[in-house]
Amino acid sequence: MITFELTREFVDRLKDLIELRDDITLRKILNELHPADIAEIYAELTLDEAKYLYYLVDDETAADVLVELSEDDRNEFLRVLPSEEIARRFLDQMDSDDATDVVSELDEERQHEVLSLMGDIEAAGDIVDLLSYDEDSAGGLMAKELIKVKESWNIVTCLRSMRRQAKDVDEVYYVYVVDNDGVLKGTLSLKNMLLSHGDTLIKNIYDEDTISVRADVSSEEVSNIMEKYNLVVLPVIDSIGRLVGRITIDDVVDVIREEAEKDYQLASGITDDVEASDSVWRLTRARLPWLFIGLIGGLLGSRVIGLFEGNISTYPQLAFFMTLIAAMGGNVGIQSSAIVVQSLANGSMGLDSNWRKLAKELVVALLNATGLSLLAFLYNSVTGSPIALTMTVTCAMFSVVIFASLFGTFLPLLLNKFNIDPAVATGPFITTLNDISGMFIYLSLGSFFFSMFG
Amino acid sequence: MITFELTREFVDRLKDLIELRDDITLRKILNELHPADIAEIYAELTLDEAKYLYYLVDDETAADVLVELSEDDRNEFLRVLPSEEIARRFLDQMDSDDATDVVSELDEERQHEVLSLMGDIEAAGDIVDLLSYDEDSAGGLMAKELIKVKESWNIVTCLRSMRRQAKDVDEVYYVYVVDNDGVLKGTLSLKNMLLSHGDTLIKNIYDEDTISVRADVSSEEVSNIMEKYNLVVLPVIDSIGRLVGRITIDDVVDVIREEAEKDYQLASGITDDVEASDSVWRLTRARLPWLFIGLIGGLLGSRVIGLFEGNISTYPQLAFFMTLIAAMGGNVGIQSSAIVVQSLANGSMGLDSNWRKLAKELVVALLNATGLSLLAFLYNSVTGSPIALTMTVTCAMFSVVIFASLFGTFLPLLLNKFNIDPAVATGPFITTLNDISGMFIYLSLGSFFFSMFG
Repeated sequence: MITFELTREFVDRLKDLIELRDDITLRKILNELHPADIAEIYAELTLDEAKYLYYLVDDETAADVLVELSEDDRNEFLRVLPSEEIARRFLDQMDSDDATDVVSELDEERQHEVLSLMGDIEAAGDIVDLLSYDEDSAGGLMAKELIKVKESWNIVTCLRSMRRQAKDVDEVYYVYVVDNDGVLKGTLSLKNMLLSHGDTLIKNIYDEDTISVRADVSSEEVSNIMEKYNLVVLPVIDSIGRLVGRITIDDVVDVIREEAEKDYQLASGITDDVEASDSVWRLTRARLPWLFIGLIGGLLGSRVIGLFEGNISTYPQLAFFMTLIAAMGGNVGIQSSAIVVQSLANGSMGLDSNWRKLAKELVVALLNATGLSLLAFLYNSVTGSPIALTMTVTCAMFSVVIFASLFGTFLPLLLNKFNIDPAVATGPFITTLNDISGMFIYLSLGSFFFSMFG
Repeated sequence: MITFELTREFVDRLKDLIELRDDITLRKILNELHPADIAEIYAELTLDEAKYLYYLVDDETAADVLVELSEDDRNEFLRVLPSEEIARRFLDQMDSDDATDVVSELDEERQHEVLSLMGDIEAAGDIVDLLSYDEDSAGGLMAKELIKVKESWNIVTCLRSMRRQAKDVDEVYYVYVVDNDGVLKGTLSLKNMLLSHGDTLIKNIYDEDTISVRADVSSEEVSNIMEKYNLVVLPVIDSIGRLVGRITIDDVVDVIREEAEKDYQLASGITDDVEASDSVWRLTRARLPWLFIGLIGGLLGSRVIGLFEGNISTYPQLAFFMTLIAAMGGNVGIQSSAIVVQSLANGSMGLDSNWRKLAKELVVALLNATGLSLLAFLYNSVTGSPIALTMTVTCAMFSVVIFASLFGTFLPLLLNKFNIDPAVATGPFITTLNDISGMFIYLSLGSFFFSMFG
């Protein structure tokens, strides 16, 4: 099977076929596509066209496509479908974790309606259970479908039970071993089952060293654990150790990417998880608030500069290097905070105390500041700037780099201590604060040196 | 098994035990830890202490710990160990993909020496094969260990063969089905095996719709495919379709995180994959080059401002809003390029042509520019700025936001077209260019309005 690549020609052809109502050709095309590909196509169609295709695929494919749709497209779709259709055609076919995601996006009244219309009562019960967990916790990520066996069984009994249980489970990666109370004891690898005789007792061949998490652990911690220990599936237990579900890595991959992208977006001054293909309105809404913060900061900065109006009118050359100093403060501050934010996010902070981290950043800052202010000094000397200006730029460069480094390191550490996402410290926020303080330092030094040498 | 949390107290206690040569207690502690935890501890110890612990664990654990170490720590470790030890204690125990990573980090002479000292000739051959692939390709990610069966077999033959093959494979997730030439035909799920009778022929129950990649596909594409299709394992084929290896999701999770972090770091002006715990020298080296770019840009900017020296000395208020305009250009530019870079990276670009993307960005930019310049106008009116200044700031704000938006969208698209990583367009580079052009726009408008109204 070759992976599919979406092209404009392909979408146009589909649109033509839909207009012609050529169901036979359309069915043939859809049959050869993976649900993830069909979901990609839906995003390029109008709602009516997508709905038309939706009635041409079988129930299982329709459910899989729904799971793969972006949240916006899915909500739009769910809004126009009758509740009974959602219950029977989608939820009855889906794994409990996916079904729960879909249900949680409906409003409360519709949730009750849809759940009561489901044909598979047991599956509906699983969804109700899963809805009670926080979306960003292990419980919110897990699915109920899993294969479990008792430690007292032998392989033959175990295989018989697995055959019965496998009907509900899409893929079998692991078999969980529990005691009579349902408490998780460990895992049975398929490899060990293959290599043992039929009358071997499970308790003699299962692996006790199984890593598990409690249902209330945060999804960020879940992703860190699965990544650190290279896990494909992670069992979830309740507060007394009973096995309640399992998280597969493909759900966590999304968490990992979203976490990393969220930090990047915050650093770039974008709220919300926006993409280039989102609507103009959504893109503006995600960007404008940050720009307002920048604007307010910049206006405050203009007041700070205004304090030095006299100096600037006497020595207009002071204005030449204002943006340079502000920009360098911003650049250095972003670097410092990005390193802290990223190290906090991927757990590579090491064991140094915060004071030691600041001390280390100070050494890096001293190196950077020395190099940069030396260059600024050379440039001003070569271009024949007055000595007061040369001294102002050189000293301001040095101080601003040191200040911005320490501030950029300190602020995210502080926010993290108070359980605020340290990523908000990056981006327009820190740039603006650095701009203002940089201007103050620069112009103060300017007044001093120009009154001395000027 | 509870997940382990590294603390300063724990490390100090270990260091004491090592000094006391208390092997019994140390062995007991190490036995209870996961190799990934031991690797985390190594990073906090001196090389001699780590080496001491290394001789207390069994061969398999030692090999697993080596795989989990950071590249720097691993290289340090490999340098002090005899080649024979690396061959027998590590490589003979490792999966082929991990072993290849380790060997590829050695210099060429040492590679030959280590490979020739391995006890398992077949495993050594696998490593030699894998070394020939580009590190950032499917071939560079894959492992040779997999379980394959022929489509002509029945389940009983198949199970017998699997038992033999399973000895070399850590975890069995999938069984691959090949024809007599070794060409990949599909996969056999363990679920289908469980649910079928022993004399069922494989050709009747295997799944033909198996997604595979060729060995020369880039690792970024591998991660996109595995993420899109929610795959746990991806088979790798050669140019004539023969099965040559498989990639597991845990190796790809690292690629995904590294890709996302790399874009973030480039946007923050950091080259190299640095962490807060890296050495001062490495941190400085990753940051200083970007700051130099910013410095050179800022100095160029100072020449641009210098062109308007006359105006500034006559109207010093012009200087008040210079940093504001520069900062807004930078903020808007970073937002625009971040959205493009991220959408290119995760393949959510959609099908719009580049012209349409620019047109859309223009609409967003017009909305942002209108809002921001209106506020700038209000502020200046309220604070009683002269009309020339008010007009300058308002018009400059509008033009700079539009310019920076379009430029921030255009530049990464252009770089991407020429196969240069678009992420370099973000960060100090784009901020600096926006600073310079922003200053030029602002001061030109200033000259115009002040000569009109001033």
